[in-house]
Amino acid sequence: MAKDYVIGIDIGGQTSKCGIVNRRGEVLAKTVIRSDDTEDVEVFVDNLAEALRRIIAEAGVEGEICGIGVGAPNGNYYTGTIEYAPNLKWGGAKVIPFAEMLSAKMDGIRVILTNDANAAAVGEMTYGAARGMKNFIMITLGTGVGSGIVIDGNVVYGHDGFAGELGHTCAVRHNGRACGCGKTGCLEAYASATGVARTAREWLEMTDEPSALRALDVITSKDVYDAAKEGDKLAIKIFEFTGRILGEKLADFIEFSAPEAIVLFGGLARSKEFLTEPIQKAMDENVLPLWRGKVKLVYSQLKESDAAILGASALAWEG
Amino acid sequence: MAKDYVIGIDIGGQTSKCGIVNRRGEVLAKTVIRSDDTEDVEVFVDNLAEALRRIIAEAGVEGEICGIGVGAPNGNYYTGTIEYAPNLKWGGAKVIPFAEMLSAKMDGIRVILTNDANAAAVGEMTYGAARGMKNFIMITLGTGVGSGIVIDGNVVYGHDGFAGELGHTCAVRHNGRACGCGKTGCLEAYASATGVARTAREWLEMTDEPSALRALDVITSKDVYDAAKEGDKLAIKIFEFTGRILGEKLADFIEFSAPEAIVLFGGLARSKEFLTEPIQKAMDENVLPLWRGKVKLVYSQLKESDAAILGASALAWEG
Repeated sequence: MAKDYVIGIDIGGQTSKCGIVNRRGEVLAKTVIRSDDTEDVEVFVDNLAEALRRIIAEAGVEGEICGIGVGAPNGNYYTGTIEYAPNLKWGGAKVIPFAEMLSAKMDGIRVILTNDANAAAVGEMTYGAARGMKNFIMITLGTGVGSGIVIDGNVVYGHDGFAGELGHTCAVRHNGRACGCGKTGCLEAYASATGVARTAREWLEMTDEPSALRALDVITSKDVYDAAKEGDKLAIKIFEFTGRILGEKLADFIEFSAPEAIVLFGGLARSKEFLTEPIQKAMDENVLPLWRGKVKLVYSQLKESDAAILGASALAWEG
Repeated sequence: MAKDYVIGIDIGGQTSKCGIVNRRGEVLAKTVIRSDDTEDVEVFVDNLAEALRRIIAEAGVEGEICGIGVGAPNGNYYTGTIEYAPNLKWGGAKVIPFAEMLSAKMDGIRVILTNDANAAAVGEMTYGAARGMKNFIMITLGTGVGSGIVIDGNVVYGHDGFAGELGHTCAVRHNGRACGCGKTGCLEAYASATGVARTAREWLEMTDEPSALRALDVITSKDVYDAAKEGDKLAIKIFEFTGRILGEKLADFIEFSAPEAIVLFGGLARSKEFLTEPIQKAMDENVLPLWRGKVKLVYSQLKESDAAILGASALAWEG
């Protein structure tokens, strides 16, 4: 029997999303399980395998799964391991042979694993905004900043499997913000959802500029977006600052791999009405003349709720 | 008859070097012609073809040339063109179908062309310090800063053929030096031979620090090197500054493509006794912990006088 289905799994700090996907990129059945209710990876993998068997039965595709693709923080494509992933309750301070463990629980079905941003890039290339592109850089703007780099149609994994940590390239060299990785000035400390909230807090403290954001106890990037939509000047300036910092670094990335497009994805990318112009401006001002105005800046076209599953599942068709 | 020889050509602003190379990477015959004695590219190509026929006869390998590899400023691998190369007297402000022109003058022998830094990377991978490596970044430290990026054993050309302009990524964001490309703060404005000379001039002007360099009318990076060798403190500090700036950017590049090694090449790389430590320190301080102390910093192993020819010739064995 032809194996015409794959499973996509997106492992996050709180929850993990799973779905059955057919060759047309349609999600036939999906489910979500908690990632944070156990510190024992064995228990997590058991729960995950049980959830997968449930949706396989629901979709009626027993015996027809060609492979399982997994996107996970600190996932290593070469080894199928999740390495020192501080955001996973069962993942910190060790190397987990995750692909092997899951495959063993799933009757030996092949499991391909990579980090979440690389999975998103494969998804975008297979089903989304990067269809037909051989050279692009995917930047995921969420709680952090991730990246998946595609060159000549292949995701760049590098010598050790961890290539594409563009969120931790240096955006601010002197007196930069502390980043979760232990360094300072990383792009992620500015151009992520948490970075935007941090900019808001800093600016409210440093200036007297009036802003609706002053009324809030806790500020999220969503609050900044909502304020900007209401015309709040400080909120709009926060996005201009964020977009400029991101655009400056994108210019560096373009000079590295000369992509056809930059694809933006993730929660913060929903604020595109305030981000696109400053990103584009800073990108063009900072890139070599030969690329000025030539590299497309596009946004993910994947249905948000399915994007992570599709991205991970697309891996499973490969190799 | 087996075609067991290739020709390597390295086109520079003043001179162009050509050589016949066998499968073991030995240069059997070589010559140098001027690049700057004509504004007419037709004349230059005629001169070049004549020089090539001379060394082919000298080596006695008529009819045994398998291909010609050319490294040239602004050379485009995809199209075989040299595009808007301001350093070439006959190359500015236009797109020259160089590979096609040379092939026509050489009885249709296949001509492969790329930029000079990419050629150097291929040479290093085929004959030099990067033998056996699939992922490395070559940085050429000469009058300017060039780069050739190798991922999974292939040079990265990108969407348009011009990838790998790492010399023009941003090293100093605010009040950076003007660069020849029209931007400011480029790595090339600091970590090149001219950058080192510029640092020397600036520092001599800005400080009262004693230095043997004060006695000189015109300062070159070689003068700074000679002074450093004599223990001149300012000269040593100039290399520390240069190495730090380069190391900081190398950390960014490592986070992009996770190379096994960085390979340094070119005139300024000869100052390695003063550069290696500050580069390594800045690289390790600025890179994510997972790569700290893991990425090798190595120097070109190609015989200087033959390196450019070997690099270009190595291209001709390919494709």
